[in-house]
Amino acid sequence: MLPPRSVLITGASRGLGLEFVKQFLQVPTPPEFLFATCRNPDNAKELQEVAKSSSSITIMKLDVSEMNTIEEAKKLVESKVGAGGLNLLINNAGINKKVTLETVTPDMMLDTFNINVNGPLFTTKAFLPLLLQAARSSTPSNPSSAIVNMSSIMSSIARTVTSDAVEYRVSKSALNMLTKILHNELKDKGIHVGCLHPGWVQTDMGTAKAPVTVSQSVCGCIQVMSNMNAENACVLTDYTGNPLPW
Amino acid sequence: MLPPRSVLITGASRGLGLEFVKQFLQVPTPPEFLFATCRNPDNAKELQEVAKSSSSITIMKLDVSEMNTIEEAKKLVESKVGAGGLNLLINNAGINKKVTLETVTPDMMLDTFNINVNGPLFTTKAFLPLLLQAARSSTPSNPSSAIVNMSSIMSSIARTVTSDAVEYRVSKSALNMLTKILHNELKDKGIHVGCLHPGWVQTDMGTAKAPVTVSQSVCGCIQVMSNMNAENACVLTDYTGNPLPW
Ligand SMILES: NC(=O)c1ccc[n+]([C@@H]2O[C@H](COP(=O)([O-])OP(=O)(O)OC[C@H]3O[C@@H](n4cnc5c(N)ncnc54)[C@H](OP(=O)(O)O)[C@@H]3O)[C@@H](O)[C@H]2O)c1
Ligand SMILES: NC(=O)c1ccc[n+]([C@@H]2O[C@H](COP(=O)([O-])OP(=O)(O)OC[C@H]3O[C@@H](n4cnc5c(N)ncnc54)[C@H](OP(=O)(O)O)[C@@H]3O)[C@@H](O)[C@H]2O)c1
Repeated sequence: MLPPRSVLITGASRGLGLEFVKQFLQVPTPPEFLFATCRNPDNAKELQEVAKSSSSITIMKLDVSEMNTIEEAKKLVESKVGAGGLNLLINNAGINKKVTLETVTPDMMLDTFNINVNGPLFTTKAFLPLLLQAARSSTPSNPSSAIVNMSSIMSSIARTVTSDAVEYRVSKSALNMLTKILHNELKDKGIHVGCLHPGWVQTDMGTAKAPVTVSQSVCGCIQVMSNMNAENACVLTDYTGNPLPW
Repeated sequence: MLPPRSVLITGASRGLGLEFVKQFLQVPTPPEFLFATCRNPDNAKELQEVAKSSSSITIMKLDVSEMNTIEEAKKLVESKVGAGGLNLLINNAGINKKVTLETVTPDMMLDTFNINVNGPLFTTKAFLPLLLQAARSSTPSNPSSAIVNMSSIMSSIARTVTSDAVEYRVSKSALNMLTKILHNELKDKGIHVGCLHPGWVQTDMGTAKAPVTVSQSVCGCIQVMSNMNAENACVLTDYTGNPLPW
């Protein structure tokens, strides 16, 4: 994949999302447009600091569970990128309530599914016209448009040997199927759709006990994204490029 | 698995659920208690007819999306089966809105997830004490308690090569992960937990175009269930016993 001219990241207020913004500023050919979206821009103090250093960053409100904020964000992006469209959508926002089989309730299951599955689905649907616009200049070996869903090793049914985190695991397996469906729909239209496991990372979600730093994880993820091709696009891959079973 | 003394089936008003009721009456050692549950017992005319022929059938209201009906059904089952507990729970109720990527809405996604994933999860949680009671007399090679979730070949991420039925596919992949989690939690407690693909079957959901009759499908499913063991319990298996990839 070519260095993207425009990138949109959800959940950019902290954790991996924030680090994606930082590292996209450092790549050899940084994007012209870097849309850093979050549900509460006013609270995203560190992101605001980062944005001061680069005119390519636009901070925007986008709550993946509120359709109207997705639509508003789409209009703003459209007005900025023009005919070039959007090259890369990173569906990064996610939640993990860390509930057990004993404590889980129907609402917790629905809530996590809504953020982790409906979020990527309806964000993708809204931005699809812009992604397709960017894809018009694609060649099969060099697509210029991609969607990356942040999955997890905890999505892997084959690798699941415990019974913890039921709402999270179930939502991420569902996200993998959604990724495959989007891949099938879009692969002949010049859009790569993939899912990534970022490693077990030192963020609020991953906790300080995690072995991987945000910097290592996002550096690896960007590498994997830039190596995406027609064969490996829809393989669940970790941040070092290793494939994982469904 | 030994022939179960007691069986509970969800979605027994029609389709595969109704056929399970019919065929469990015909096996060499029929269950003493056959709980045929549905969301509208009064409308389930064919089930009512079937029930006239056997005193082992109890028709009960159970809507998998209404917790209070699950709890009421559990109390009734408990009062009937006594110390023997419940041997087999078949989470069969399910919906398929057959929506496309274009027509799908957030509510459709949540609705199908609620019936197809929360349904089996919270039905299982409610009946777990009775399943554990039945499992007390289990040996590892001969468990006397099992949970079977009706999945689908359309849950298989590996086998999905189209982009249709997004809400259904996503929900059934999520159900597979739930099955694996329940399997991990319950395998050392004498309960087998598995997921089955019944084939493409001539029901309202499968339509008349399907190649498999309800009779063939359910006959195969009962065979597969009776051959469940510690190794194959949590493999996605079709009604002929063939394994499918996640
Ligand atoms: N950390 C790990 O070890 C790990 C491992 C595997 C996969 N992942 C995945 O990687 C992604 C990022 O995880 P992380 O570790 O960076 O998590 P995190 O530190 O908890 O950050 C989560 C981010 O998602 C945002 N978010 C939550 N709900 C949102 C909504 N409704 N709309 C928009 N944004 C929302 C949060 O915004 P607020 O600041 O407003 O809350 C925050 O920016 C997630 O999809 C996660 O599942 C993480
Ligand atoms: N047919 C196939 O080709 C096929 C293939 C793969 C998997 N499956 C799976 O096999 C299972 C049975 O399918 P089927 O073909 O028999 O479907 P069906 O003919 O459409 O029957 C569905 C059954 O589920 C019940 N149901 C729906 N929502 C419910 C709720 N909230 N609470 C309780 N019951 C509810 C329906 O009850 P009402 O009568 O009240 O609506 C009906 O009894 C489903 O899980 C389905 O996904 C079927």
